[in-house]
Amino acid sequence: MAVKVLTIKENILGANEERARQNQKLLAQKGILMINILASPGAGKTSLILATIKGLKDRLRIGVIEGDIASTIDADKVSQTGVPVIQINTAGTCHLEAHMVEKALANLPLHKIDLLFVENVGNLVCTAEFVLGEDKKVMLLSVPEGDDKPFKYPLMFIETDVVLITKCDVLPHFDFNVQAFTEAMKGLNEKAPILPLSARTGDGMKPWFDWLEAEARKKKNATSKS
Amino acid sequence: MAVKVLTIKENILGANEERARQNQKLLAQKGILMINILASPGAGKTSLILATIKGLKDRLRIGVIEGDIASTIDADKVSQTGVPVIQINTAGTCHLEAHMVEKALANLPLHKIDLLFVENVGNLVCTAEFVLGEDKKVMLLSVPEGDDKPFKYPLMFIETDVVLITKCDVLPHFDFNVQAFTEAMKGLNEKAPILPLSARTGDGMKPWFDWLEAEARKKKNATSKS
Repeated sequence: MAVKVLTIKENILGANEERARQNQKLLAQKGILMINILASPGAGKTSLILATIKGLKDRLRIGVIEGDIASTIDADKVSQTGVPVIQINTAGTCHLEAHMVEKALANLPLHKIDLLFVENVGNLVCTAEFVLGEDKKVMLLSVPEGDDKPFKYPLMFIETDVVLITKCDVLPHFDFNVQAFTEAMKGLNEKAPILPLSARTGDGMKPWFDWLEAEARKKKNATSKS
Repeated sequence: MAVKVLTIKENILGANEERARQNQKLLAQKGILMINILASPGAGKTSLILATIKGLKDRLRIGVIEGDIASTIDADKVSQTGVPVIQINTAGTCHLEAHMVEKALANLPLHKIDLLFVENVGNLVCTAEFVLGEDKKVMLLSVPEGDDKPFKYPLMFIETDVVLITKCDVLPHFDFNVQAFTEAMKGLNEKAPILPLSARTGDGMKPWFDWLEAEARKKKNATSKS
């Protein structure tokens, strides 16, 4: 499948929330669950999406919007799985904005999608400040990054609906303390579940899949009732 | 040693280059080499600085400016080594700016420093856009982040004077291909040396120390001649 590339320059910030509401409205009409995937560069966002497609594609129809400053590396990988994918290139902007997602939505076969992942630009700071119209924010913290990150980058950890601790297969090789991380989160965000997993080995993926399926079902039910 | 904390809000961007020139002038007068340390969150910036202090403190007088959105975790660690350190808290801003460094310089014993590290906020995008008055930019790419990052975050790789591939002790556990990374850099930046190392084991640290010592010597010589 050929990958579509949209090159989009930064928009005026003030309009972002209104655009996000428009995206939300469209997604509510279609019954699509949109998940904003947030993390540092190299935390394993694309690997998580690929492993989730593999694990859930027989139960949910998945679509992907890839956000990067440059390149189509991630969209090319997703495209090989056969799911619909759009690459947004932000041309320097350090985060996705709602108007970029709006253009991507217009280029996706929405009637064939139940669950839409938006992989944001790798950035633990700026991406937390821009809503896209997503139902949920899911952030990844990878084991090699260390367990002290909530203290240094608090907004992302406050804003997220779920924390995935990724690359748990390499826990024996790093000083990451899951208990210390869980304690650090208590002061910032009591509601977000913390799910340790490894996209490489598959360990811990089931709770993540179950959470996604439950949220996708809720979204469908809300749409059919309205 | 008690850690000083400066909380500084974002300044108007246009003034940044002029402020950077003022910092540069001050550092030239004092013969201090200032290194801007840039990387994603959790790439090992603080560990590198700590290992460099340990390895070089008998040969160079080192000082550190720590940049974080919040917390004094990194400055507390540096402080335990006995070198002078200032923590800048940016209060949400995703990068350091020259006026923040200017205030930190005013709070450091500059007559006792040959080599000054500025650890920037963990961010592979925005920090590349703001000069601080540094002599050199040194970026870290950690093995767990992956070798494809130059394609996705090109500006940082174009702007840097040196690339340190950090956490090389875990190379056996990741798919990072040093040769592929070196090839990727050829299109972006032919001049920056690429130094693979591990701050944890000490492997590969000597070329980094040698580079720092040579640059610090050049800076001193330029000052004594002027």
